[in-house]
Amino acid sequence: MPVILGPNRYGKAETRLVRVVRDGGVHHIKDVNVSSALSGDMEDVHLTGGNAAVLPTDTQKNTAFAFAGKFGVGQIEDFALLLARHYVDSQPTIHHARVEIEEYSWRRIPVSGDRQHSFVRDGQEVRTCIVHHDRDGRSTVVSGLRDLVVLNSTGSEFHGYIEDEYTTLQPTADRILATAVSAQWRHSGVSSSSSSSFGESYTEVRRCLLEAFAETHSLSLQQTLYAMGERVLTTREEVCEIRFAMPNKHHFLVDLAPFGLGNDNEVYYAADRPYGLIEGAVLRDDAPDAAFAWE
Amino acid sequence: MPVILGPNRYGKAETRLVRVVRDGGVHHIKDVNVSSALSGDMEDVHLTGGNAAVLPTDTQKNTAFAFAGKFGVGQIEDFALLLARHYVDSQPTIHHARVEIEEYSWRRIPVSGDRQHSFVRDGQEVRTCIVHHDRDGRSTVVSGLRDLVVLNSTGSEFHGYIEDEYTTLQPTADRILATAVSAQWRHSGVSSSSSSSFGESYTEVRRCLLEAFAETHSLSLQQTLYAMGERVLTTREEVCEIRFAMPNKHHFLVDLAPFGLGNDNEVYYAADRPYGLIEGAVLRDDAPDAAFAWE
Amino acid sequence: MPVILGPNRYGKAETRLVRVVRDGGVHHIKDVNVSSALSGDMEDVHLTGGNAAVLPTDTQKNTAFAFAGKFGVGQIEDFALLLARHYVDSQPTIHHARVEIEEYSWRRIPVSGDRQHSFVRDGQEVRTCIVHHDRDGRSTVVSGLRDLVVLNSTGSEFHGYIEDEYTTLQPTADRILATAVSAQWRHSGVSSSSSSSFGESYTEVRRCLLEAFAETHSLSLQQTLYAMGERVLTTREEVCEIRFAMPNKHHFLVDLAPFGLGNDNEVYYAADRPYGLIEGAVLRDDAPDAAFAWE
Amino acid sequence: MPVILGPNRYGKAETRLVRVVRDGGVHHIKDVNVSSALSGDMEDVHLTGGNAAVLPTDTQKNTAFAFAGKFGVGQIEDFALLLARHYVDSQPTIHHARVEIEEYSWRRIPVSGDRQHSFVRDGQEVRTCIVHHDRDGRSTVVSGLRDLVVLNSTGSEFHGYIEDEYTTLQPTADRILATAVSAQWRHSGVSSSSSSSFGESYTEVRRCLLEAFAETHSLSLQQTLYAMGERVLTTREEVCEIRFAMPNKHHFLVDLAPFGLGNDNEVYYAADRPYGLIEGAVLRDDAPDAAFAWE
Repeated sequence: MPVILGPNRYGKAETRLVRVVRDGGVHHIKDVNVSSALSGDMEDVHLTGGNAAVLPTDTQKNTAFAFAGKFGVGQIEDFALLLARHYVDSQPTIHHARVEIEEYSWRRIPVSGDRQHSFVRDGQEVRTCIVHHDRDGRSTVVSGLRDLVVLNSTGSEFHGYIEDEYTTLQPTADRILATAVSAQWRHSGVSSSSSSSFGESYTEVRRCLLEAFAETHSLSLQQTLYAMGERVLTTREEVCEIRFAMPNKHHFLVDLAPFGLGNDNEVYYAADRPYGLIEGAVLRDDAPDAAFAWE
Repeated sequence: MPVILGPNRYGKAETRLVRVVRDGGVHHIKDVNVSSALSGDMEDVHLTGGNAAVLPTDTQKNTAFAFAGKFGVGQIEDFALLLARHYVDSQPTIHHARVEIEEYSWRRIPVSGDRQHSFVRDGQEVRTCIVHHDRDGRSTVVSGLRDLVVLNSTGSEFHGYIEDEYTTLQPTADRILATAVSAQWRHSGVSSSSSSSFGESYTEVRRCLLEAFAETHSLSLQQTLYAMGERVLTTREEVCEIRFAMPNKHHFLVDLAPFGLGNDNEVYYAADRPYGLIEGAVLRDDAPDAAFAWE
Repeated sequence: MPVILGPNRYGKAETRLVRVVRDGGVHHIKDVNVSSALSGDMEDVHLTGGNAAVLPTDTQKNTAFAFAGKFGVGQIEDFALLLARHYVDSQPTIHHARVEIEEYSWRRIPVSGDRQHSFVRDGQEVRTCIVHHDRDGRSTVVSGLRDLVVLNSTGSEFHGYIEDEYTTLQPTADRILATAVSAQWRHSGVSSSSSSSFGESYTEVRRCLLEAFAETHSLSLQQTLYAMGERVLTTREEVCEIRFAMPNKHHFLVDLAPFGLGNDNEVYYAADRPYGLIEGAVLRDDAPDAAFAWE
Repeated sequence: MPVILGPNRYGKAETRLVRVVRDGGVHHIKDVNVSSALSGDMEDVHLTGGNAAVLPTDTQKNTAFAFAGKFGVGQIEDFALLLARHYVDSQPTIHHARVEIEEYSWRRIPVSGDRQHSFVRDGQEVRTCIVHHDRDGRSTVVSGLRDLVVLNSTGSEFHGYIEDEYTTLQPTADRILATAVSAQWRHSGVSSSSSSSFGESYTEVRRCLLEAFAETHSLSLQQTLYAMGERVLTTREEVCEIRFAMPNKHHFLVDLAPFGLGNDNEVYYAADRPYGLIEGAVLRDDAPDAAFAWE
C-alpha cells in the first residue's frame, strides 16, 4: 500500500510591509501584507527532509522587502507578478509561484502647510490579489476585495420560496439587506495591463459593485449577487469572471407589540450567527478557462 | 472568617440594534451596540438566588429595543442617559445604572435619483460612550472612540532615554509613528448638552485628535498623547478630562544592506507584538472629580 | 458579450446547536456548528429573483435543529450525511448538498455523587467534517481537525537549503518546531462506516498525528507533515488521502549576548507574523479520485 | 484654563516569551506573554518630549528576555515580582511598576522512550497575574484566569424576578447555565508565598471554581458567582478577595413544536450576542484594602 505525495506548496505568509515614498514633504505610503507560496521539485524535502530544492521562507520574506526597496510597491498585482516571476525564473527547482497580497487603505489627514506625511486608516475593507506564474510562462491575475460591508434599508423582498415541513419563515416584501462583500475577479490577460490600469480597474470594479448593490431592487441576495457580477462584466472589459462570497447579515425586525408599540420597519436586531451564505460566480460565456486554481 | 459581597453589577451586554428613520425615500440609519449594567439591592440574589430585586437582563434588552422604537436613537450619549435614568427611576431596587453604547459609522452609497437607502460601512473606528446615573440624580457622560488608526511617516524622533545594561535600542531622529487611538473624554456637565451638541462635540474632538497627531513633531509618543489631549481641552470647553490608551505600533526599518541596498526610511516591517503601550490622562486643573469610575 | 452564471451554492452557515442527552442524572452534550450549502436549479433565483427552487436558509437552520431533536447528534459525519441526503432527496431542485460541521470538545468536571451534568471546554482544537452528497447518490466524507497546536522543543534542524542573493538565514541543527495543525482526511468509503467507526477513526487519526509529530526527527516541516500523513495512511485503512495546512510558528532564539548571557536554546521569542505556511497532501497511490471538491 | 497631566503609565505589552528547561532528554516549557507598565517622573516626556526619565519599552522587552535567561521562569507571579522590583529598584525615575503575565498551558504528548520534548496546547483557558510594586516597597499580587468555559446542562433555574412593562421572559425551572469564567484573586500577602505556593494556589483555586460551579444548584448566575468566590475564600486562606466577570452564555431552547416535535430540554441554540454579563467581587470582611488598583 504505497503512499505518495500529493499537491503541495510552501511559503512565507503575511509579511507586513510598509513602503514610504517621499516626494519632498509629500509622502505616499503603501501598506501591504505579502504571502508567497512555491511549488516544484519537492519530493525530497517531504520524503527525506533534504532541502536542496527549497528556497527558504525566510528568504521569501527578505525578497519581498528587498523588492519593495529596489522597485517600490505600485499596484499590488504588479508587485505580485514581479515576485512570482522572480521565484520561478531564478530557481530551477521552483516550477510555480503563487503570490497573494492584501492592501490596507489610508487617507491623508488634512493639515495646513506643506507637510503631508500624516494618514488615517480608511475603511475596514481590504484590497486583495492572487497571482500565479509557472515555468511555462503562464500567469493569472485575480484581483479582489473583502469586508466591503453594505446595507440597503429597503428595496429587498423575499417570498415565493419552497415550503416544506420545516418552514417557519414568513415571506416579506420589505427587509433590510446587508452583506460583507468578498469578491475576486479574474483578469482576461496579464500583459495588456499596464501598472496604472490595475489601479483604475480596482476603483471602477469597486464602484460597479457598490452601485449595482444600491440600484438593484432585490428579490433574493442571489439576484443582487448576479447583478453585481453582471455590472462588473458589462462595464469592465478586462474582467472575464468574478466570484462572490456574500453572507446574508440578517437584520430581524423586533416585535414591539408586547410593549404596545408598532414597528414599521424601524427597529432591527442585527444577528451574528447563523447567517445565510451565498456564493456564486458570474462569467463571460467565452471566458477562457483559468490556468490555475483561484485559491 | 466571614465572607462578604463586594462591588457588583449585572446587565445585558452587546444588544446589536439598528434603527432606521424613513424620511420619504431618504433613509437614515443608526447602528449601535448597547450594554447596560445595573447595581443596587443585590445581596439576596448573590447569597440566596432570590431574584426579587433583579430586573432581568432580557428585559434590559427589550427596553433598549422598545426605547429605540418609542424615542428613536439620536446621539448615543442621549440614548444612554435615557436608558440609565429609566432603570434607576423605575426600579427602587436599582440604585445605579451604567449604559455603554458603541456606534458604527455608515456612509451613503451615491446613487442617482431620489432613492437614498443604501449605505457602506465607513471606517473601522468606533464611537463610544459610557453613561452613569444613580438614584441621587448624579450623572456622568464619557464619550470616546477606539480603533482610530493613524500614522506619521516622519516627524517622529526618539532619543535621550535612559540606558542601562539591557539597552540595545539605537536612538533615531526619524521614524514612523503609528498608533490605534483609544480615547475617552469626560463632559463637564450633562444638562447643558443638548442633543445636537454631543454630535458636534464628537466631530470636533475627533478633528482635534487627528490634527494634533498630525501637527505634533514628536520626540516621544507620550508627547503626542499629551498634545492631543491638550488640543481637545483647549478647544472644547465641554470636555474636562480625556484619557488615552495608545499602542506604539512599531514599524521597524528593514536592513537591506545584505542585499546591497540602502534603506533611506522607505521600507518598514510592521510588527504585531510586542508593542509599546502608552496610557495617560490630560485634564483641566479645575476639573471636578468624576462622580463615578470611567469603566 | 453574454454573461452567464457559474458555479454557485447557498445555505445557512454556523447554526450553533447544543444537544443534550439525559441518561438519568448522567448527561451527555454535543456542541456543534452546522453549515449547509445547496446547489441545483438556481438560474432563476440569480437572474430574476424567482425563489421557486430555493429552500430558504432559514429552513435549513430549522432542519438542523429538528433533526437534532428527532435523531440526536451522534458522530458529526453521520449527522452531516443525514442532513445532506435529506436536502437532496426531499427537494427536486436541490441537486447537491454540502454540510460542514465543527464540534467543540467538553470534558466532565469531576463531581462526587451521581449528578453528572457539569462540563468544562477541553482544548482549543476543533473537530471538523465536510460531507458532500448529490442526486446521483454519490457521497464523500472528509473528516478533520484544526487548531491542534503542537511544539517540539528540540529534534528539529534546518539546513542545506538554496542560498541566493536574498539569503540571510543561518542554518540550525536545533530549533523549536511549532505548528497549529489543520488536517482534513478523506474516507475511502461512506457506507462501510458505522456510526461508532467515525468516532474511533477520529480518535485514532488524531493520535497518529500527535505521535508522528512527536516521534519525527525533523529536517524540515515538510518532512514532518509527510510523516504525519504517512502515519495516518499506514495505520488507518479507512483513510485514502489527507491534506494539511501547517503554519511554521517561528520561535526565534533571543540574542542575550549584549547582556553578557549565553542562550543555549533556552529563551525564545514566539513571533506572530510573518510565518511559514506549509501545505501538502499525502495519499495512497491507488486512492480513487474525489467525487467532489474538498472545500 | 491650565491643563495638567493626570495618571499615566507606559510600557511594553505582550512580549511573547518561551522558556525551555532541558533536564537531560526531558524538556519543560513555559509559554508566557509579559507586559510591563511603568510610571514615575513622567512630566517631561509628556510636556516636552524629554526622555531622560524614560526606560524605553524596548529595554523592558530585553529585560524580560534577559531575566528569563538568567533566572528562568518559574511561577508567573514570582517572575512578575522579579521584574517589577527590578524596574523600581534600578531606576530612580520609576516609582511604580505593574507587570502582567499570561501563561498558556501545554501538555506532554505521550511518547515511548526517554525523549520528552513534545507538547500539545492544553485547553483554551489562560492563567494570568498582575503584580504591582512601588518605591515604598509595597507589592500586590493578583492571580487569575480567563476563558475557563463551563456549562451545566441542568441544575439552573431563573424565576421570581421583577416584571415590568418590558418583560417578556418566561420563568424557567430548568435551563442550561454556561459561562466563560474570568476571575482574579488577590493574595493577602506577598512575602509568605514561596514559589511553589503560587503554583499550588493556582491549581487549588481553579479546582474550587470548577467544583463550586458544578455543585451549586443555581437560581441565578449571581448566586453561582458568589458560591464560587465563597468556595475559594473558605478553602484558600492566602486569598483575601476575588473578582469575577462572567458572561451568561445563553442557550435558548429551540421551539420544535412547528415540526411536530417536543423538546424536553434537549435541543438548544447557543447564542452569541447579546449576552448577560455578571460582575462581582467576594471578599473577606477583614480583607485589607488593596494598595493598588487591580487593573
